[in-house]
Amino acid sequence: MAEALRGDTPLLRELRVHVGLEDEGGRAIDGMGKLLRPSLVLFVADELGAPTAEALPAAVGLELVHNFSLVHDDIQDQDRTRRGRPTVWARCGIPEAINAGDLLHAIATIVVLRAGGEAGAALAAALAGATAEMIEGQSLDLAFEKRSATVDEYVRMIDQKTGALLRCAFELGGIVAGADAKVRGRLASLGRAVGRAFQIQDDLLGVWGDGDTIGKPRGSDVRRRKKSFPVAAVFSRAAAADRARLEAIYASEPVSEPDVRWVIGTMERLGVRDEGAAKVREYLAEADAGLESLPLSSKGKNEARSLFGYLAGRER
Amino acid sequence: MAEALRGDTPLLRELRVHVGLEDEGGRAIDGMGKLLRPSLVLFVADELGAPTAEALPAAVGLELVHNFSLVHDDIQDQDRTRRGRPTVWARCGIPEAINAGDLLHAIATIVVLRAGGEAGAALAAALAGATAEMIEGQSLDLAFEKRSATVDEYVRMIDQKTGALLRCAFELGGIVAGADAKVRGRLASLGRAVGRAFQIQDDLLGVWGDGDTIGKPRGSDVRRRKKSFPVAAVFSRAAAADRARLEAIYASEPVSEPDVRWVIGTMERLGVRDEGAAKVREYLAEADAGLESLPLSSKGKNEARSLFGYLAGRER
Repeated sequence: MAEALRGDTPLLRELRVHVGLEDEGGRAIDGMGKLLRPSLVLFVADELGAPTAEALPAAVGLELVHNFSLVHDDIQDQDRTRRGRPTVWARCGIPEAINAGDLLHAIATIVVLRAGGEAGAALAAALAGATAEMIEGQSLDLAFEKRSATVDEYVRMIDQKTGALLRCAFELGGIVAGADAKVRGRLASLGRAVGRAFQIQDDLLGVWGDGDTIGKPRGSDVRRRKKSFPVAAVFSRAAAADRARLEAIYASEPVSEPDVRWVIGTMERLGVRDEGAAKVREYLAEADAGLESLPLSSKGKNEARSLFGYLAGRER
Repeated sequence: MAEALRGDTPLLRELRVHVGLEDEGGRAIDGMGKLLRPSLVLFVADELGAPTAEALPAAVGLELVHNFSLVHDDIQDQDRTRRGRPTVWARCGIPEAINAGDLLHAIATIVVLRAGGEAGAALAAALAGATAEMIEGQSLDLAFEKRSATVDEYVRMIDQKTGALLRCAFELGGIVAGADAKVRGRLASLGRAVGRAFQIQDDLLGVWGDGDTIGKPRGSDVRRRKKSFPVAAVFSRAAAADRARLEAIYASEPVSEPDVRWVIGTMERLGVRDEGAAKVREYLAEADAGLESLPLSSKGKNEARSLFGYLAGRER
């Protein structure tokens, strides 16, 4: 990551701060977070027999695309802080933050192509395809701010918005290792299941999460009217009167604390929390089955299983 | 272009309108403009002996990157119309316009990789490198809104902001045709000279242009306080008193009509218009010399020379 973002322009300095390589004074820090996606690339490549060095361009390229999406998401969502630091647009303004995200996107392509030759081209094509899907998901998510989505529509959106890059992590690992089409297809299915479990659990935590373990206070996504899984589910399940009140609450801000409590109570009463937990279990089971179908070591399968459990539990 | 942007999502429909393939009702139109960059790719590839079909992915990919940059530029410059149509952000809002540009950027990579194998990887790497340079130039241009630039700094900025993609057009044509490193280097030098002549001429027209032939009324770039070549030059040449008045004019809006006339008069008095015209001639001569060093047909050289003359004259 440090090598990919080396250079003395204001944009590159800003990007090193954004990804957590440097503080605002230019001093090296260790703030890059969990690096989930690149770790998955390296893990899959390693399990399928490819040397780590060969998987690095794909792993770094994927993490750069993830970070580019965060820079632009923060503008779109008007979020002023991320990882405890001011976001790029909050520091440099929207025009320069658009540039910063665009530059990360271009550098991601440059880096993934360093894998060289035809393999580099295959990796870059997979990464660009996942990037396009992610952006379509982001567009759909913005549309859901203006209308309610069904649970199916919501799942389709997260398959794109957050699922595409997670799925891509598995695919890139497979491409690096020269896996055949069948294995690559299975890797993609596994990635999709993991992505769904991960995102729905994250959405549940946004409503029922406990501030001590995940940093989100109870009801935070209701307070910011985020149209996450529980909202799609409660809109689908609510009868006319509840639905009218939900629509009124989700149509104007701020949301009062009694309304926050009523929304959470309604979700619980209509079984939304249980539905969500069941979906997380369902997708984890799908991931488990997918794992079994892959030519991984039993040590690798165990490690993957505990990683998926951690992701879908997400209590740190 | 139509094939690259096929699909039924709101973003893709929006992009077809932006590039001029469709009107807002989804009907096909012929509004894609001059297609300068892709035409250059096809011209160079053809002159160096490559079939047009092989050059198409690179040509289309480059035009998509150019169009992606326009979508984001229009947000950054708050421009509400382009090519006589409302800009993407003016139609869909800033968040969705950021997505639209990002999607074009990703599709550009997907398309250029369709050239296949190692050639596709080389084309994608050249395109991503030029894209990164263009974005750095855009960042520098934004910085010049807040401070004055010397003529040298200004030329360095346009080498990146507008020059990178023009240069890339020549390079992509060379890569498609399998040109060796020496020829590719000469193509890049030629592209840089053409890019400079083109941009400085465009800047001169922004101040002295005649509304009838190029659609810009005299003084339009002074009125919008655009920090183009004549501004860099007049700031460099002005003595203290003139400089102070220039700084005052360029520090606040709106610019009064007497101030517009004074700025243009000062530029003329200090020889800025002549300096600009001399630079355009200098870079055109450099382009001519560069053309001579390339293995093109004499018909090709003549065509290129008249194209460069057209670009640097730009009277339509």
